[in-house]
Amino acid sequence: MKDYFKVDEWKIIEEGFAPGYNKVAESVFSLGNGRMGGRANFEEAYSGDTLQGNYVAGVYYPDKTRVGWWKNGYPEYFAKVLNAANWIGIDVKIGDEQLDLAKCEIIDFRRELNMKDGYLKRDFKAKTESGKEVEVEATRFCSIADDEAGAIKYTISPMNFDGEITLTPFIDGDIVNKDSNYDEKFWDEVSNDIRNDRGYVQLRTKKTGFEVATAMKFTVLQGDKPVEFKSDSIQKEKYIAADIKVQARQGEVVTLLKYAANLSSQNYQSDELSAKALEMVERISQKGFDTMLAEQAAAWAEKWKHNDIVIEGDAAAQQGIRFNIFQLNQTYTGEDDRLNIGPKGFTGEKYGGSTYWDTEAYCVPFYLATAEPKVARNLLLYRYKQLGKAIDNAKLLGFKDGAALYPMVTMDGTECHNEWEITFEEIHRNGAIAYAIFNYTRYTGDETYLTDYGLEVLIAISRFWAQRITWSAERQLYVMLGVTGPNEYENNINNNWYTSTIATWCLKYTLQVIGKVKEANAAKYKDLVSKISFNEEVECEKFSDIINKMYYPNDDKLGIFLQQDGYMDKEQILVKDLPAADRPLVKNWSWDRILRSVFIKQADVLQGLYFFEDDYDLETIRRNYDFYEPRTVHESSLSPCVHSILACKLGDIDRAYEFYLRTSRLDIDDYNNDTDDGCHITSMAGTWMSVVEGFGGMRVKDGMLSFNPLLPHKWEAFSFQVGFRGALLQVIVSRKAVSIKNISGMGVTVKVNGTEYVVVSGAEACSVPH
Amino acid sequence: MKDYFKVDEWKIIEEGFAPGYNKVAESVFSLGNGRMGGRANFEEAYSGDTLQGNYVAGVYYPDKTRVGWWKNGYPEYFAKVLNAANWIGIDVKIGDEQLDLAKCEIIDFRRELNMKDGYLKRDFKAKTESGKEVEVEATRFCSIADDEAGAIKYTISPMNFDGEITLTPFIDGDIVNKDSNYDEKFWDEVSNDIRNDRGYVQLRTKKTGFEVATAMKFTVLQGDKPVEFKSDSIQKEKYIAADIKVQARQGEVVTLLKYAANLSSQNYQSDELSAKALEMVERISQKGFDTMLAEQAAAWAEKWKHNDIVIEGDAAAQQGIRFNIFQLNQTYTGEDDRLNIGPKGFTGEKYGGSTYWDTEAYCVPFYLATAEPKVARNLLLYRYKQLGKAIDNAKLLGFKDGAALYPMVTMDGTECHNEWEITFEEIHRNGAIAYAIFNYTRYTGDETYLTDYGLEVLIAISRFWAQRITWSAERQLYVMLGVTGPNEYENNINNNWYTSTIATWCLKYTLQVIGKVKEANAAKYKDLVSKISFNEEVECEKFSDIINKMYYPNDDKLGIFLQQDGYMDKEQILVKDLPAADRPLVKNWSWDRILRSVFIKQADVLQGLYFFEDDYDLETIRRNYDFYEPRTVHESSLSPCVHSILACKLGDIDRAYEFYLRTSRLDIDDYNNDTDDGCHITSMAGTWMSVVEGFGGMRVKDGMLSFNPLLPHKWEAFSFQVGFRGALLQVIVSRKAVSIKNISGMGVTVKVNGTEYVVVSGAEACSVPH
Repeated sequence: MKDYFKVDEWKIIEEGFAPGYNKVAESVFSLGNGRMGGRANFEEAYSGDTLQGNYVAGVYYPDKTRVGWWKNGYPEYFAKVLNAANWIGIDVKIGDEQLDLAKCEIIDFRRELNMKDGYLKRDFKAKTESGKEVEVEATRFCSIADDEAGAIKYTISPMNFDGEITLTPFIDGDIVNKDSNYDEKFWDEVSNDIRNDRGYVQLRTKKTGFEVATAMKFTVLQGDKPVEFKSDSIQKEKYIAADIKVQARQGEVVTLLKYAANLSSQNYQSDELSAKALEMVERISQKGFDTMLAEQAAAWAEKWKHNDIVIEGDAAAQQGIRFNIFQLNQTYTGEDDRLNIGPKGFTGEKYGGSTYWDTEAYCVPFYLATAEPKVARNLLLYRYKQLGKAIDNAKLLGFKDGAALYPMVTMDGTECHNEWEITFEEIHRNGAIAYAIFNYTRYTGDETYLTDYGLEVLIAISRFWAQRITWSAERQLYVMLGVTGPNEYENNINNNWYTSTIATWCLKYTLQVIGKVKEANAAKYKDLVSKISFNEEVECEKFSDIINKMYYPNDDKLGIFLQQDGYMDKEQILVKDLPAADRPLVKNWSWDRILRSVFIKQADVLQGLYFFEDDYDLETIRRNYDFYEPRTVHESSLSPCVHSILACKLGDIDRAYEFYLRTSRLDIDDYNNDTDDGCHITSMAGTWMSVVEGFGGMRVKDGMLSFNPLLPHKWEAFSFQVGFRGALLQVIVSRKAVSIKNISGMGVTVKVNGTEYVVVSGAEACSVPH
Repeated sequence: MKDYFKVDEWKIIEEGFAPGYNKVAESVFSLGNGRMGGRANFEEAYSGDTLQGNYVAGVYYPDKTRVGWWKNGYPEYFAKVLNAANWIGIDVKIGDEQLDLAKCEIIDFRRELNMKDGYLKRDFKAKTESGKEVEVEATRFCSIADDEAGAIKYTISPMNFDGEITLTPFIDGDIVNKDSNYDEKFWDEVSNDIRNDRGYVQLRTKKTGFEVATAMKFTVLQGDKPVEFKSDSIQKEKYIAADIKVQARQGEVVTLLKYAANLSSQNYQSDELSAKALEMVERISQKGFDTMLAEQAAAWAEKWKHNDIVIEGDAAAQQGIRFNIFQLNQTYTGEDDRLNIGPKGFTGEKYGGSTYWDTEAYCVPFYLATAEPKVARNLLLYRYKQLGKAIDNAKLLGFKDGAALYPMVTMDGTECHNEWEITFEEIHRNGAIAYAIFNYTRYTGDETYLTDYGLEVLIAISRFWAQRITWSAERQLYVMLGVTGPNEYENNINNNWYTSTIATWCLKYTLQVIGKVKEANAAKYKDLVSKISFNEEVECEKFSDIINKMYYPNDDKLGIFLQQDGYMDKEQILVKDLPAADRPLVKNWSWDRILRSVFIKQADVLQGLYFFEDDYDLETIRRNYDFYEPRTVHESSLSPCVHSILACKLGDIDRAYEFYLRTSRLDIDDYNNDTDDGCHITSMAGTWMSVVEGFGGMRVKDGMLSFNPLLPHKWEAFSFQVGFRGALLQVIVSRKAVSIKNISGMGVTVKVNGTEYVVVSGAEACSVPH
């Protein structure tokens, strides 16, 4: 719903409560700190439509796969993101009446996500059935400083009565996973305990055996004064709570401060989990809510200092980009190489798994430019550590000799997707993983990664391609049969240009890296050759042969690359000719009709031209863009950003701006009517790309950053920071000039609109008229 | 397992009990009479591995579809064949010990399916844990004369003791459906009752509301003498039983005769079902077991008189063909146009639905030649009655204006298959339905069917094709994108030669039938035109245009039709080069690998050449056969028969014989290791075809039967009967001669090896040297 949330440069604001839109709001207002997070569910009971979700990073469950018709090669299990114990809950009773916004009259309601300081605040006035009015204010955050903890300040005040209010802070581990295939519950209890003002629930996941202890401690204030209370503890399986009864007078504010911690056996011994969790809530409660909130604001200020994109003259665009950057930072911090960026982050459980090719194709560039190199490096290492499983996965499909196929979706390296046309055929994902290695090296200049880890992955991927192609005796060329490209609205096609192109690119890059590594560290290379039984002579010759004899479909008359064999047999109609009622196609057309049509879900040939733009002249890119974009329905959240970047490259600033708005406000405006399930986290990195690589025109080539900026008509100016090889630059693009400030101590040479400038530390070292 | 069952020309015999093979035996020994039937489960309790199945024709349940990833256009429900009340059960206790062959020592065991007389007999000797030995003989059949009834004679005799034996005949409606998607039970109880020697259970299916009353009556004999007994009735939900205690002496035979009936609300008012069922068991028990069994033998003799195929000199081949004919007759009698031929008949529940294109492509020819024309006509009418739903089904996929797509799998006309590459794309099934109309008319000469029903179906199917093709501006021809041909080892391919060929054949045939019907009955034609809003001028012109401008892939160098675009890009290896361990591919290769390979599941181009052989010269057929057969893995039960017929046509008698054996003994030898789920009923009609159309070389052309027989080397002779337009012929092919006896009163002209002969009634009217 467009315009549901108020436009504000630093906040997302909901004024008035729309129950039908609550799940969208819960997604948009989600909180996270990279280690834990959850949806913006209410603290108090809510019997209306809600999707409850609290998540602990890296904790998953291999749910038994559900398919209609089993195909050989399907994984037996599908790793699910797990809804974990609810730590935010505070039941409220006013006299005998439960406070439940689905059952009260809501007089006033406001929810606000403060992106600047990193907290969620909700205040409302409500009238119970018996006519009692209360005012509530709830502030909550997942702490960055204490990243296993969260805190809530919940205040309630009787507006028209004196009387008893019961506050019941609780931890509830008896939760459901909406996405469970067989309605199973995934957690067993290990233990629980509660004593007066503190307690914990420790749970263990079935099968995977992850343990998480969720502890809470709480204090109560009446007015400003702490209340001495003796609470009634409640203990059930997977559940603890305490009833605190307060006699409140009209106008008086009763405050519950709830401190919570989620500690996982990934980081502690299981047998000390609950003690450590209790220690942590003790420690943060000593620190106190206000101190924690101040630390939170400071931590976010530090993030924004490096991450922020400022847009002048377009508050909606400003809000959009900040929301994307905020969510990305909430989802992944890069501190733990076991974690990755799930498509829904901590905002929902849909899709399962945490890792898609989105990470390599969309998120790596964001973290490369906005965080320390180790963050992107950790994302690469994540895949390196899963290489063995990628080799196993390829084996399951009949490949051999160390060929690796990375999974389409995974949590721990095991494939958990099960749709043959995707799982077995959307193999271009292997290319994106190789591309991320290239991208990391290109950006950081750190070639040690290639020697230590990268080459091993590259060879395994190249081995896959070398077995996956087919020699066509008829064409006397290699062909790539039976694939699904990034455009998933085509299945089981032959010679998808993008897949074939990225496949041979992988082979070329692998050959190049072999050369580099041999030169840089012959001993390590020799170790690797022996470790993976690499027959350099034979295998490299095969790689070269494929590079030289690969078939790529194209249309000479139109001067374009063909998305796949037979694409021109389709009826050549354009998106603009589609009736509005038919959109989105995926909800209105049968699958076969979509497949037969020319319509493209997301950049496919254009994804290749984006990745490998230097290999093609501008007119080739333009012809392909002009041909394919009008056939693209952008029904993937990953689509508009690539088009925005290409539109910028081609000088089409209006289309670029249109694509930008669509990608940056996708969730705020619930553009695809699916934000209720969670936000589209990975495409948010694409939004960042569309500003920095699109409007900013930033590229890295030959170890140098370059910028070719364009300014959308509506904007006065925009600016962003990027880190590059030790330097930190602020790029400001206004009507008048492109200014590059070096806000670090390290000088750097950049190109602006084709000319090289040395940018030294200090104010406005480089300003180029625009 | 080859050679598990003993070879016998009229029987299937199992000697000794192999628990691991029990489910295969249960399938092979299945009984049915077209209205009810079931697997050869034991009467007494069996705690070993078994698949219980009793089925009532036409009763089904729309189980909620289970898919991994929902695609727009999928049906919400999948009609399942329902396991119905167990009417065969007789629990047996010897003293306090339950008779259970999984827990006894089996001294002797023999099961025998008597195909000549149509019953199942099992006898065994077993020793209980305490050492008591008993001899049991159980004979059971589903009556043809009383086709809602079955009878069991169960005798038990103590071999080494005197003592109490408790016989507990029961009816149990609390059964499970192994194929249920969500482990649901599909039957609710309406009522049950039991009084001394008779009782019933009446059940109602959830959702569909079919009611079935299953009644039993029983009598007991000690030696030859009826026993007066007072049984203890047991009544539970969905269950009735009676305990009958008999004091038996060593060597004495105790006999329980159990008469049962299954009456369905398809044929009676629900409120009279149980009364009628009780009446029926009363009536048949009056008749008595021996009389019923004699009637059964007589009914089967009548069937065999017209259906039998006699093979001399090859008992295994003889047993094979009789088993196929026996099962076909058990499955479908053609008396009820609401019924059809499920792929498993009454032998299992797998696959669900009752109707596949198998019926039209494989079964119609069998029933045309071996039964009254009304049988095949009823199969045609079944589809005619479902035309409305076929139009709805097409609408769901985006087709309009009366275009019909018949379902891939159905029970009542609604699609219940849910695999996009099949459900939405294996559209050649529409062609088979049109072909059956052509086949029926060609065989019977009855053109009134076209006027009354056939043309309406043909136009709806042609309308579908006219919308399903795509005009390729590039080729300036019509193409057929995104289909799956009969070879399901290719999905979502373009321009499958078979599909495109049968599509234009449908259009041509429709145009031809329009001409015929206009001439034969202008008034009815006019009514039809108005009923279906047929714009003859515009639509026929479109049909003609497609016929004239259709693209068919072929390979000029090889002189073959190409299975689909791009087929020659595949690695051209042959089945003979596949390692044995890789077979069957479907169990050993991942799906993408199968799809990329040249390997063919079942006749595809060759299916077209079989259907439309007159349109191609013999050398074209040979080139295609020589190219495709070596690439065919025959992993569908429908594959060998078509190849056998083509091999005969091409004079390759050895290959033809090999294919014949494979198809005819598929279930007896459990060739594909999947007979435990049930027999492959529809392919049994293909077996018949491979004898009559293959070795017999029978064809119908210009209203005349012709024969071009070949005799496999191993056979001395073979003979079969066919009915043709009122005449009944027996064809005997021996080393010396082809003899055609007219065993009806009506003369007929036939061609043998190209020469016409008039065959009049009487002995050996025509004998042609061979």
